Amino acid sequence: MKSFRKELWFEIPTRRSFVNITGQVEQALGESGIRDGLVLINSMHITASVFINDDEKGLHQDYEKWLEGLAPHAPVDRYLHNRTGEDNADAHLKRQVMGREVVVALTAGRLDFGPWEQIFYGEFDGRRRKRVLVKIIGE
Amino acid sequence: MKSFRKELWFEIPTRRSFVNITGQVEQALGESGIRDGLVLINSMHITASVFINDDEKGLHQDYEKWLEGLAPHAPVDRYLHNRTGEDNADAHLKRQVMGREVVVALTAGRLDFGPWEQIFYGEFDGRRRKRVLVKIIGE
Amino acid sequence: MKSFRKELWFEIPTRRSFVNITGQVEQALGESGIRDGLVLINSMHITASVFINDDEKGLHQDYEKWLEGLAPHAPVDRYLHNRTGEDNADAHLKRQVMGREVVVALTAGRLDFGPWEQIFYGEFDGRRRKRVLVKIIGE
Repeated sequence: MKSFRKELWFEIPTRRSFVNITGQVEQALGESGIRDGLVLINSMHITASVFINDDEKGLHQDYEKWLEGLAPHAPVDRYLHNRTGEDNADAHLKRQVMGREVVVALTAGRLDFGPWEQIFYGEFDGRRRKRVLVKIIGE
Repeated sequence: MKSFRKELWFEIPTRRSFVNITGQVEQALGESGIRDGLVLINSMHITASVFINDDEKGLHQDYEKWLEGLAPHAPVDRYLHNRTGEDNADAHLKRQVMGREVVVALTAGRLDFGPWEQIFYGEFDGRRRKRVLVKIIGE
Repeated sequence: MKSFRKELWFEIPTRRSFVNITGQVEQALGESGIRDGLVLINSMHITASVFINDDEKGLHQDYEKWLEGLAPHAPVDRYLHNRTGEDNADAHLKRQVMGREVVVALTAGRLDFGPWEQIFYGEFDGRRRKRVLVKIIGE
């Protein structure tokens, strides 16, 4: 069994954003030399997500509006967590809906994907440097 | 390390449905000859889920009603994604709540499950052929 | 490839609770002797979650209130599942939001975590003995 790890770094200039990281994950695959196995891609931060869905701008705006409805940012004092001095409690909730991680099959040197699957970094509390971990195991 | 992959195909005649696929995953295990490791089961489509829960019809109706409350299908013009000509934006949202994939331990040739765990394919935009990937790694 | 499995047992005296299990998972790592690979940690029950987030009491109360808003426990007859004699339909819904499992990278003998990541058992229908599975594969 071989393994490989790589960190992807982000500094999103806004509070919230979705970034397509499929190309960066494919680059890590190439660097690893591993051609068959499993790929874990996870946010290393607890106010951000990694998820798989469609690269369509309208849908991303729908996600943004929908998540804001499910877990509103304001008023910030509606959340006990924000008494710690933070204003990001909503980001901890939104991240649970969208998920921390994806696990993807690696087959014949490629992400074993359906036709529309793309990997996204979902930032819910940006404006600082944060990381995604890519961990590959296989042969 | 050995690996095995298999696609399961579905064509659900309705827009939404939950299908118990535990038997099909167990059959893939048998075909693989792998007896210890990890099993990834994921939807290859972005308007469908794979999840683990109870095989109880009442609960599935509860999920259907609950998801429709969280992310209503209609009116379809409430979603920007549907301006692309689709009417399935709600399916992209519902799939995030229920999840894309499950990872299951494989121990002594069997799914290492608690007493009530069953694997489901969750379709949110059916009436066409779609796939689930089963990827097994181990020994 | 080596593999290791361990069950963690819980009997939560209340209906709902979040328990930090990071130390127990680290102990399992030590027992396994595996230093590089993947760690799956999943609830073996379908009314409980394993998730990764912050160990902050205010946030946990925010989760509790938020989940109760998304999937209220009462009135119990709002759910068809509860006609089976159960009163835990809401727990099956809450668990889908928080997730069944996490997969964590194992690197140099340690959980490959960002600065604030902690693993929690999320109980939504407690007052009986339930299990979490830790499965480790690697070398």
